[in-house]
This record gives sequence, C-alpha cells and structure tokens, in this order.
Amino acid sequence: MDGLKEGTHSVQSIHTREHLAQRDAQDTLREFKERFSLPESVIYLDGNSLGALPRGAAERAAEVVNAEWGQGLIRSWNEAGWFDLPLKLGDKLGQLLGANPQETAITDTTSLNLFKALASALRTQKADSPHRRVIITERDNFPTDIYIAQGLTDLVNSLSQEIGVPYEVRLIDDEASLRAALDEDTAVLALSHVNYRTGSMWDMAEITAAAHDAGALVVWDLAHAAGAVPVDLNGANADYAVGCTYKYLNGGPGSPAFIWVNARHHDRFWQPLSGWWSHNAPFAMEESYTPAKDVRRFMCGTQPVTSLAMIEVGLDIALEADMAAVRATSLELTDLLIELVETHCAEFGFELVTPREHAQRGSHVSFRHKHGYEIMAALIARGVIGDYREPEVLRFGITPLYISRTDIWDAVQILREILHTNAWQREEYSLRNAVT
Amino acid sequence: MDGLKEGTHSVQSIHTREHLAQRDAQDTLREFKERFSLPESVIYLDGNSLGALPRGAAERAAEVVNAEWGQGLIRSWNEAGWFDLPLKLGDKLGQLLGANPQETAITDTTSLNLFKALASALRTQKADSPHRRVIITERDNFPTDIYIAQGLTDLVNSLSQEIGVPYEVRLIDDEASLRAALDEDTAVLALSHVNYRTGSMWDMAEITAAAHDAGALVVWDLAHAAGAVPVDLNGANADYAVGCTYKYLNGGPGSPAFIWVNARHHDRFWQPLSGWWSHNAPFAMEESYTPAKDVRRFMCGTQPVTSLAMIEVGLDIALEADMAAVRATSLELTDLLIELVETHCAEFGFELVTPREHAQRGSHVSFRHKHGYEIMAALIARGVIGDYREPEVLRFGITPLYISRTDIWDAVQILREILHTNAWQREEYSLRNAVT
Repeated sequence: MDGLKEGTHSVQSIHTREHLAQRDAQDTLREFKERFSLPESVIYLDGNSLGALPRGAAERAAEVVNAEWGQGLIRSWNEAGWFDLPLKLGDKLGQLLGANPQETAITDTTSLNLFKALASALRTQKADSPHRRVIITERDNFPTDIYIAQGLTDLVNSLSQEIGVPYEVRLIDDEASLRAALDEDTAVLALSHVNYRTGSMWDMAEITAAAHDAGALVVWDLAHAAGAVPVDLNGANADYAVGCTYKYLNGGPGSPAFIWVNARHHDRFWQPLSGWWSHNAPFAMEESYTPAKDVRRFMCGTQPVTSLAMIEVGLDIALEADMAAVRATSLELTDLLIELVETHCAEFGFELVTPREHAQRGSHVSFRHKHGYEIMAALIARGVIGDYREPEVLRFGITPLYISRTDIWDAVQILREILHTNAWQREEYSLRNAVT
Repeated sequence: MDGLKEGTHSVQSIHTREHLAQRDAQDTLREFKERFSLPESVIYLDGNSLGALPRGAAERAAEVVNAEWGQGLIRSWNEAGWFDLPLKLGDKLGQLLGANPQETAITDTTSLNLFKALASALRTQKADSPHRRVIITERDNFPTDIYIAQGLTDLVNSLSQEIGVPYEVRLIDDEASLRAALDEDTAVLALSHVNYRTGSMWDMAEITAAAHDAGALVVWDLAHAAGAVPVDLNGANADYAVGCTYKYLNGGPGSPAFIWVNARHHDRFWQPLSGWWSHNAPFAMEESYTPAKDVRRFMCGTQPVTSLAMIEVGLDIALEADMAAVRATSLELTDLLIELVETHCAEFGFELVTPREHAQRGSHVSFRHKHGYEIMAALIARGVIGDYREPEVLRFGITPLYISRTDIWDAVQILREILHTNAWQREEYSLRNAVT
C-alpha cells in the first residue's frame, strides 16, 4: 500500500457506481430496505449506534399507548401480554444468538445486565474456587463494561469485613496478553465480541475454551454483534452474555437490553439486583427472597413497556433475514468501504483501524485521521451520518438491511469532496455526544 | 361501629349522589379530568398501580418515534435533547418533592435506584461508622425493597474475604419496633413513605430525625407518595429517595423511575451500578472510572427514550395542579369511600385496613374481606377497576385529578350490588397479576 500516498488516483478502484448498482439489484436482502423508514438525503452509517426506524414500530407504540395503556389500563399486564414480553422477546432474540428457549430475557440496560452476570459469576467462583478474585477485561472495551466491573469489585472490597486479597479488575490489550493473564486467580473473563471502536471481533468459541481451560467463566458483551454477525452462544459453550437491542436490532432509542445465561447457571446463585420480577412468586408478596429457577432470576423491576414492545418489530424483521446473507453482504460492504477509501481518498491520510481479516471483523469500519472530528462533522452536515470516537476515529456502521453498495460509493465520494476542498476546515459542528 | 352489622342500612350515610355531584361541580380540580383519556364505562380506582393516559402522551410518543428517531436518528441525542431528559424531567419532578434543582434523576427502575441508594449509604457508613452493618426496613414493605436490601447484603457477605460480623436486613412491624430497632448497629433505614398495601403513611420528618439521632441514614421509597401526597425531602432532611413515575404521576406503563440524593451525599462514594452515564466525562472513553460530582453519579446506562419522554406529559399536568388541593380532595374522597362502604355495605364484613387518621393516610384505601379476590374480580368485570393484594385485601387508589365523588358513590353501589346478589360467588375472573 506504500504507493497510495504518491498522488491522487495513483491506485484506481476496481469498482464503478454502475457496477455497484447492478450488484445491489441482485442482492437477496435488497427488499429489506423498504421495511425501514429513513430520511431522504441521508446515508445512515450509524446503525451500530442507533438502528433505523422499522416500519410498524410507530404503529406498535401507538397501540401500546392508546389501546393497551389508555383503554386497557392495568388489565393490559395480563390481557395485552405485558408480563410476558421480556421472555417472549428474549426467545425471539435468542434465535439469533444460538440460545435455547427460556435462556434470554430482554430487560434493563447492558450495564446493569453485565453487573448481574459478573456478580453471579463471582458468587459461583467463590463457592467453587474461592481464591479466584480477578475479573479480566479489555483496556479498549466499551468503558461502561470496565466501570461496571470496577464498581462491583470496589463495592465488595470496600464493604468487606476484613482486609484480605481484594477483588480486582485486570485490563488486557490483545490476545497474547489475554492468554498470559488467564491464570489460577482469574474468576471471570468479560469481553466484547465486537469492539465498539475498532470493529475487531474475538473468536468466541476459541476464547471461551481458553478461559474455561484456565478455570474462568466468560461473559460476552454482544452490543455490537447481535444482529450483525453470526453468534452461537451455546455452540461456544459461553456462560453469560449481555447486549443491547437499539443498534443492529433496531429496537428504538434506549430500548431495553438483554441478558442470556447458560441454563447451567440459572439455579445456582443469587444475583444481587434481585427485585421482585426475579422472585420465584412475585405476586405472593413474601418477605423473604426466593429466586426464580430460570432466567427470570436475572430480571429486576418493571420494564418500560412502550420502549420494550417496539423491539418486537425490529426483531421480526431480523428473524426474516437470512443471517448468513447478512454476514456475507456485511463483509462485502465493509470490504468495499475500505477499498474505496484507500483508493479514492488515498492521499488524505486515513489509517484503517478495523482488521482486514474477515474472521476478525464485525460490521463496522473505523479509520483514524488526525482531523477525524472535523471531518465527521462535515460528513454529517452533508447527510453522511457516521460517528466519531476518541481518539481521532471516524466510525462507519454497515447495516446490510438498509445500506447498499451505492450508498457506500456515494458516501466515499462525499468524503473525498470534503477532503479535496478542505471543507472540514471551514465548518464547525457539534458532535458533542453520540451514544455508542 | 358495633351497630353496623345489625342490619342493612342500620347506619345511613350522610351523603346522596345529588349532593356529591354538587360538590364535584365546585371542585377546583374538576377540569383536570379532561386532561386524561379514560375508557367509557370504567371507574378507575387503580391509578396507584398504573396511572391513566394523559392527553398528549400518544402525540409525544409519536413525535419521539417518527420525528426524533425516524428522521433525526442518532442526531436526536443532541438535537432533540434526549441526553438531558433524565435531569430535565428530574428537576420537574423535584418540584413536587421538595428537591432542589439537580438533585433528582429519572432513570432505571425503583428497585435499581434503591440498590444504588443503599449501597451508597452503606459505603458512607463504612467510612464514618464501620460497625454499622444493619439495614432496617418494614416487614410489610413492598417486597422488592426487602429483596433488594437482602440481595445487597447477601452479595457483600458472600464475597467477603473473611468471616466477620455480616451485613444484615432487619424487619420492623410498626413505629414502636422501629424506634426500638434503631441502634448503634443501624447503617440505613429504608421505608416506604406510603405503604403499598395498607395506604398508611409515615411522618417523614419525624422518622428521619429519629433515624439521624440514632446515627442512621434514611432512604424513602416514594412509589405510592410522589404526586399523591405533599412531600418535602429537603424539609425533612432526608438522605435518599426513590420512586416510580407510572402511578400518581401518570408516566405510562413501566416508565423509568427516579432517584433523589441529598446534595451532601453527591460527591462522597462510588455507587456500584457505575455505568458510563454516571461517569464524570462519559464521552472521554476513559479506562478508569471517575464519578460525576452531581446526581448523575446515580445514573447507569442508556434510558428507554420513548417511555422516558412521555413522563413529561404527566409531570406537566401534575405541576399545574395545586398539591394542597390534590391532598385536600384526596382526603375527602378517601373519607367518602370509607364512609360509604361502612354504611352502604355495612353488613358484608369489610374490615378497613387503611388508617382513619388523615396524617397517617396516603391516597388509597384498602379493605380486607375473606372473599376479597372474588369480589374484586366481580368489580373489575363491572368496570370498577381496583386491585387485589395478598392477603384478602381489596385496594382502591384515589386520584383526585380524574376521580370524582360521584365515581366513588357509583363504585360503592356496584360493590353493594355484587355483595347483595352474591354475584361474586358465581363468577370467575383472572386477576393473576397487577403491577403494584
């Protein structure tokens, strides 16, 4: 690739827009784009942050609010099936994750579900291998995963009765340091299947096996994986998984998250966020806690029904799509984005952050650029919506259900125009925040 | 009251329907009923379980879904103000609770917020008075409050490095046993301001002072109080409060809950559900946790925006109403319900559970009856929607913004008819569950 910086167009892309349009027309997923309501004049490359609006979601929300809440009132907990939504939707989602029925609940947030999983895993280890007091996670993990692990260990250490060997969070940087860190002190390994920033992906089965060999339990955060890449939790023999429904699953802004727990861990230990929805008989109003024997043990309190119910619309669309086709198109689109940026924008100094190896790549592509923030602001102003992540990273989410090859082509032409005209130097936009 | 059981109508009510209709017409709150969308042929006496649908909430949901999510997409975190909703709505709610600005956040669930408050309080005590390891709460508290306290102490005890004096949850039964239980071991007192079952209400200022005198911190659960009775958290010098928005605040099914933290506790200790929204710089993506210095420290992860945004509609209505008028009408209506049941249904064996003393009564009325379950099922089938709570308790929520004196009259006539004709013996309905 050394030749790329010698001059404009020194390396020509093998693609043309016409050729890409032909490919789009043959794509088996092409009809799914009509299932989403997207604004005109926008190329939405941020579905890994907030997925697009599926057609039907607004109608579902209106039904919940007007009919189920307004007319049904309290009766809707039974008659409209509100009580059953967390596990009913969990089972639908589970089909995308290699889960068995009744192993997945949609509830609370990813951060909270991670706390439950980590606490449950620490309790299990305390009973079986009490010297194991280390949680291993990635330095480059999405920060909330680190903070939650730190919050849990800090709580236990600070309230412990006597000073002993403290619980600890250890951060690893790559697979080599991960393998070196797994030892007889390791209680839990908590990793994101696909990294939020770089888009790099762990081999779930291989890493789970390595952790189990070392005596550790494994929690997978699937926030950037669920609905984006094939996942087989039972096939990988994982212990716990958490993730969100508002990215590739198109559940809506802040829609409740999920927790999957391998059935072998359901009936072992008390997870501490033990609100009444996790009780074995929540309406018996007992004064002592008796946990449910199934995945309901990992629930806590009453869920936000309107936001929860809308998740089903996106899930139903995801279940109609063939995940193998989604993955194949995702890889073709991410390859295309990399290739077009490295040819059409070769002279502008973008550094690819995402792995080139398919097996190590999720469904988004990130480039580092020293003016990444300003460039992303200029892109968004022109309707190409990606996002920016510290440090200096432009991130583009690739969602094959509603993004086409010509979208990628057009986005790169706009990127090239911004760089070529130095437009990014002349504009100021606020990207202040954008939720992962 | 002994004479009541001697025969039908042995004690006449002082009220007539005509007289009550006249009183309704003079009520300063009467116009608020038009602000809610209630089904025809229903008398809704369960607003303390799930509040009614405020007009405008469906439109707000549609705006969030179609415009903010569908068109704005990820940009709406800034442009539609999604980021600011938890504290913006928290400040609106805080006006009803005697909170100062920036002391209240709307986030997560009541159970989760209680966990945060209890954990924060235990950490504070551990630093100041490390021997204090007891959480006191009520045996008759809403069970999730007990389970959460038990889950927290179980976590810490089970993961402690060495066996010492364990953390413990102690249950009290009444004010006498509460005062006897407050001692040098007490870390935290956690009470529900209004009891979910009986409707009895603690004197917040007096009990808080007693707990402080004993060296304890106090957490108030306002689930059945917020929007229903006057609350002055700072006036009572309380430490923490939690509660829900879907009862008297009419936020919608499962709408996110709230946490209030006295500013003196904001910047002390790490609450363990320390997701990225509680970080001092959530978008800096730092690998170490630095808590926010204000009430944001008590947040965790991304909130369900559609369910969250609708809360504002109910809050705005509540803020328009004069809380003194709400309280006065609530007491008049609960007095009326008690009086009508004790006269019109005198012979049927209802036992009042709710305190007669105004200062000790919230805004719902409960009667015990050995056939309470069947009677409530028959009431609901006839459009009088209250709910049932173990054991044998019929519970009627009184919401002055949309319940009138004639509603109470009509409900009691239907109750009388059900008992008089033994209709409750002939019908079977499923009340299976109804969320508190």
